[in-house]
Amino acid sequence: MPIAIQDTYPDDFAHCYGCGRHNEQGHHIKTYRSGEGTVTEHEPDSYYRGAGEFAYGGIIASLIDCHSAGSAAIFWMQANGRVIGDEPAPRFVTARLEVDFVAPTPLGALRLEGTAEESGDRKVIVTTTLLAAGDITARGRAVLVRVTD
Amino acid sequence: MPIAIQDTYPDDFAHCYGCGRHNEQGHHIKTYRSGEGTVTEHEPDSYYRGAGEFAYGGIIASLIDCHSAGSAAIFWMQANGRVIGDEPAPRFVTARLEVDFVAPTPLGALRLEGTAEESGDRKVIVTTTLLAAGDITARGRAVLVRVTD
Repeated sequence: MPIAIQDTYPDDFAHCYGCGRHNEQGHHIKTYRSGEGTVTEHEPDSYYRGAGEFAYGGIIASLIDCHSAGSAAIFWMQANGRVIGDEPAPRFVTARLEVDFVAPTPLGALRLEGTAEESGDRKVIVTTTLLAAGDITARGRAVLVRVTD
Repeated sequence: MPIAIQDTYPDDFAHCYGCGRHNEQGHHIKTYRSGEGTVTEHEPDSYYRGAGEFAYGGIIASLIDCHSAGSAAIFWMQANGRVIGDEPAPRFVTARLEVDFVAPTPLGALRLEGTAEESGDRKVIVTTTLLAAGDITARGRAVLVRVTD
């Protein structure tokens, strides 16, 4: 049974509205390793709409942000010979987020696929493709920095 | 009494989770003209947290996104000799969003200040400074496109 990176975040890092398992109201997104990349599948509640029956920009940016942070942790573990489930999971925060809204994103099942553009010890850059019903509707690029305390 | 641009959006454009007055669950942000720029003041609910007691990246991106769309409409009206309240309000959607997370953003009263980097008939670029307790914690840049049907 594959483990989502967010299920291994330390408790003090697990309250995020986007991806924290301890946040009652949040999205609870879960990101898995998939081949050389990462994948997050999520269906937003219908009230996260923007114009018409399409997702609003903020939910798309939110999903890409948390998916990128989880992906960065996965890529860092991979580069350091670790697998998801090894503790402690590294914690990454976003320094910069870019989103290109390629087409309106219908509300429904969404899939985010992540790739490592750069994978350093302190900095990881993740590019993301967001698909709705198989069509690319948004692209993301995020610069993540590892929290070392 | 100043009017927020979101209070003048056409009904079919007023269901957005970020800024729609008809979205029961959403943020209901309101953007006003302020001098040559725009301003949005908003205090997110406490569950929009990320790590610790700081706002999560998605809420910051969401606020900048909707603030930028509202600002684009305001700048367009200004360039076309109209004032907020003249109908119909122009509708703008985001083509690209960039967010730089300069410092952690404490949950509490936030202020977003918008400036027009470019103000065309079809395309408007808005830069945003996000302040928490007077300190700049994030910067945004958004490319918005006017919906002409």
